[in-house]
Amino acid sequence: MTAILLLSCADQNGLVAKISNFISENNGNIVDLDEHVDSDQNMFFIRVAWRMNGFKIEKKDIYSKFQPLAEKFNAKWEINFTEQKPKLAIFVSKYDHALQEILWRNKFGEFNTEIVAIISNHPDLMGLSETYNIPFYHFPITKETKAEQEQREIELLKKMDIDLIVLARYMQILSANFVSQFPNKIINIHHSFLPAFMGGNPYKQAFERGVKMIGATSHFVTNDLDEGPIIAQDIIRITHKDSVKELVRKGRDLERLVLAKALHCFLEHRVLVHKGKTIVFE
Amino acid sequence: MTAILLLSCADQNGLVAKISNFISENNGNIVDLDEHVDSDQNMFFIRVAWRMNGFKIEKKDIYSKFQPLAEKFNAKWEINFTEQKPKLAIFVSKYDHALQEILWRNKFGEFNTEIVAIISNHPDLMGLSETYNIPFYHFPITKETKAEQEQREIELLKKMDIDLIVLARYMQILSANFVSQFPNKIINIHHSFLPAFMGGNPYKQAFERGVKMIGATSHFVTNDLDEGPIIAQDIIRITHKDSVKELVRKGRDLERLVLAKALHCFLEHRVLVHKGKTIVFE
Amino acid sequence: MTAILLLSCADQNGLVAKISNFISENNGNIVDLDEHVDSDQNMFFIRVAWRMNGFKIEKKDIYSKFQPLAEKFNAKWEINFTEQKPKLAIFVSKYDHALQEILWRNKFGEFNTEIVAIISNHPDLMGLSETYNIPFYHFPITKETKAEQEQREIELLKKMDIDLIVLARYMQILSANFVSQFPNKIINIHHSFLPAFMGGNPYKQAFERGVKMIGATSHFVTNDLDEGPIIAQDIIRITHKDSVKELVRKGRDLERLVLAKALHCFLEHRVLVHKGKTIVFE
Amino acid sequence: MTAILLLSCADQNGLVAKISNFISENNGNIVDLDEHVDSDQNMFFIRVAWRMNGFKIEKKDIYSKFQPLAEKFNAKWEINFTEQKPKLAIFVSKYDHALQEILWRNKFGEFNTEIVAIISNHPDLMGLSETYNIPFYHFPITKETKAEQEQREIELLKKMDIDLIVLARYMQILSANFVSQFPNKIINIHHSFLPAFMGGNPYKQAFERGVKMIGATSHFVTNDLDEGPIIAQDIIRITHKDSVKELVRKGRDLERLVLAKALHCFLEHRVLVHKGKTIVFE
Repeated sequence: MTAILLLSCADQNGLVAKISNFISENNGNIVDLDEHVDSDQNMFFIRVAWRMNGFKIEKKDIYSKFQPLAEKFNAKWEINFTEQKPKLAIFVSKYDHALQEILWRNKFGEFNTEIVAIISNHPDLMGLSETYNIPFYHFPITKETKAEQEQREIELLKKMDIDLIVLARYMQILSANFVSQFPNKIINIHHSFLPAFMGGNPYKQAFERGVKMIGATSHFVTNDLDEGPIIAQDIIRITHKDSVKELVRKGRDLERLVLAKALHCFLEHRVLVHKGKTIVFE
Repeated sequence: MTAILLLSCADQNGLVAKISNFISENNGNIVDLDEHVDSDQNMFFIRVAWRMNGFKIEKKDIYSKFQPLAEKFNAKWEINFTEQKPKLAIFVSKYDHALQEILWRNKFGEFNTEIVAIISNHPDLMGLSETYNIPFYHFPITKETKAEQEQREIELLKKMDIDLIVLARYMQILSANFVSQFPNKIINIHHSFLPAFMGGNPYKQAFERGVKMIGATSHFVTNDLDEGPIIAQDIIRITHKDSVKELVRKGRDLERLVLAKALHCFLEHRVLVHKGKTIVFE
Repeated sequence: MTAILLLSCADQNGLVAKISNFISENNGNIVDLDEHVDSDQNMFFIRVAWRMNGFKIEKKDIYSKFQPLAEKFNAKWEINFTEQKPKLAIFVSKYDHALQEILWRNKFGEFNTEIVAIISNHPDLMGLSETYNIPFYHFPITKETKAEQEQREIELLKKMDIDLIVLARYMQILSANFVSQFPNKIINIHHSFLPAFMGGNPYKQAFERGVKMIGATSHFVTNDLDEGPIIAQDIIRITHKDSVKELVRKGRDLERLVLAKALHCFLEHRVLVHKGKTIVFE
Repeated sequence: MTAILLLSCADQNGLVAKISNFISENNGNIVDLDEHVDSDQNMFFIRVAWRMNGFKIEKKDIYSKFQPLAEKFNAKWEINFTEQKPKLAIFVSKYDHALQEILWRNKFGEFNTEIVAIISNHPDLMGLSETYNIPFYHFPITKETKAEQEQREIELLKKMDIDLIVLARYMQILSANFVSQFPNKIINIHHSFLPAFMGGNPYKQAFERGVKMIGATSHFVTNDLDEGPIIAQDIIRITHKDSVKELVRKGRDLERLVLAKALHCFLEHRVLVHKGKTIVFE
């Protein structure tokens, strides 16, 4: 088992020394360490992973033992353990490619997660959920029922103690109330290279503008549509020969890969958020 | 010597046959042919290159001989010859990297062009022009003198019978009057993946948005800033470690390559424009 | 319905004209045409697609009507129709990712094919075949039974009139006899950027060499292992942090995409083979 | 001014703590830290950068003060300072593109280096050297004079106390004797994605194999031709349309970028070598 610390605070002398001393003095061996100093903002960010094998502090006591140090730095922090799989809920509508990709990769052991729910406003992907033995929850949504249904979703998610929500081409805009319940815990895939082509029909927008590449962007959801902190993005080249239909086909590959990458990074506790941007320790 | 036809018209049966017959009956051998049918717009686009060696029509007579056929199709067309190098004027301000790249590549024989003028609102790059023996014209521009100076530039460019103007990080916005004199004859390089980050300081905009890649876009200049038909674009990945200064450094490589690619395509007569978009026959 | 001609022959004047006349005179409208002249080898290659709607020659008569023209050129050629789906057999062993990808894409309508058989030397992927309702054939292979089992496979494939065989991480080397039965009809995916890291364990080879990128290559199978004509290849960047296990994980994405691309090109009749190399009209 | 430690040793508990304590106790502020643990080889690699402003140990004393710690770890290590520019000698023959690129980037301030010599077996690039005011040394080499001329080069390089030699398309193979004088101090650019297409004429080899991409690789020179530790590599896509001449043209861009990247990493002290492979802390 490995412990992973994610921490951010105002930059100051001795941060790495104090943190690595805490680990070293308790007989932990650091297997991975990455840090970033943002000189403009005077901020310090770090991810440290160390083996729990032989570590003198028991897992259950680590929080309380590390707490005093973190308080001295006035830090935002969390410690996770590789044996604790974050709980994931996937929101979908009718498209199956992003869901299929996540389920397939998870079966292959690529993701450090337990998928506890697939939630949809349509029943279409129930069959796929069953193939992979994941509970499927159907919450049909109309303009009238949206607030109420979201409330039921929130209750379900809270009850299941969800760590992450992934919108795998979920075709509903979440309300401000919903989003506020899960800050930096909702990841979306948008099928354009943001900030270009925000909003609906980005492939059509891209076709009409005549760009020579299309993209996909995975980002945290905030209340500003398609403006949340970006975790991963990529592009592929297109030409004048590509119709909108071809863009949709080629874009599906990107959506799958970019979402998978963002998810992989999050589940390995590699992502920090600060002032609308991410630090991704790859 | 090779002749290159670029033609567009409404789609109809027999276009390829008639065009290739014209070439074949006059004993021309096609060495390259690429066509595109846009079914939505019912448009036909073609680029055909054939060897003039053995061709029964003399170069000077080709226009008049092809004219009747083109009229039947109601086509927009041009025929160019590899031995006739398009005349190029390069606009610059103070940054030398894009200019340096063009001059260097041209010396290496990469571009089918004759560079006849380097025009600048600043004197800084005169030395570089001299190294490559290209006439340098200095047109200082203030708010008050802009209209007048542009008029002088237009006259100079017309007198030199310019085929293409490249804005190699020229830091002035050309007036609508200037642009209208050279439709689809002015190529710009913008240092972002358009349509994202239009206008000034795109690297700073990119940094502030927290994107995970930066781009460059080469496009024809129209009177809508950064909205002209896109010829080429590309990106490179960045991370949270990259400051604005690093983006500028990394972006320079992209700017040089993307502009060079657009220029190369144009000078080989591979670019057609239709309704705000390009067809690039690579 | 669209007809697609693939043709190659020695280069000579008038080829495009004669071929496009044949189409035009019979009232066909060309929707896509791409050609390539290899001046070194004096070879001509073309792909032409035209609408059969309104074409004066019936589908069943096209071969005999085009035959005389092709004979004049001494051409190698074939004509296919979009409504005729090539029949595909997929060979697998135990890894499911390449198979899963093909089945998933096919269900999504990306491939112009009918998958008629999944053939394996192991029973492991029978379940996946059943999910997609594709007949699964299990041919266990030992050193002693190889010749005999391959003979049975050949008979099955001939009986089903297979157009293409895809080796989707099939972990057996096909015998020279087998390969000779299906010239340019067997596509393999090799998990390296060929010609580097031929043979077994390419990811381990890559790790040991310390390359900064890994690749995947899809190629036609010939009797020289991993030396057949290359259809598609791509790479992704890696770093010193990537263990062999990480290379395997990252490489899977490449394998899936590169094989899918090669397959897509073949099934749209975009691939010609000449002297150990491919012409891919994308 | 920033101090940069590069260190490698057998992995053991407390390495990061001890190193960061050394810095912290002397009032240094770490601005960048990257480490890598190779569990297979039980090796530890680290790069740490800290501000010398306010650091209690003077620059001239750092070596002796750090020495005891490094000895305890039995480490291989070096400490460099940003204000000390590594001295670079560039070897060229007749091609100017790689040289031009380095000189141009250096003028632009991209490289942390002092270029002290351009050494060539041909006089062709003397003019370019003069433009940039770099001393040019001409050592014509024949089979008979090679040993003697190399000896003179070695003496010159030793006298100038060179930190790095870059072979910018130098068309001579350095002797084992020469190479042994500068272990991990000679960087070459090879115009293929190694280990494919080693040796001469890689573009021709690539063309003949029919690959769908070409590459460039920058690596340390060892006595096994094109088999030294790889620092950077990249590729671009090509098609059947590209002649060898086109590959040369397109490849030049790659060569320039990949060599520049390797050089940039080395000059910022980001490269460690261990058992034929590199760790590049980007």
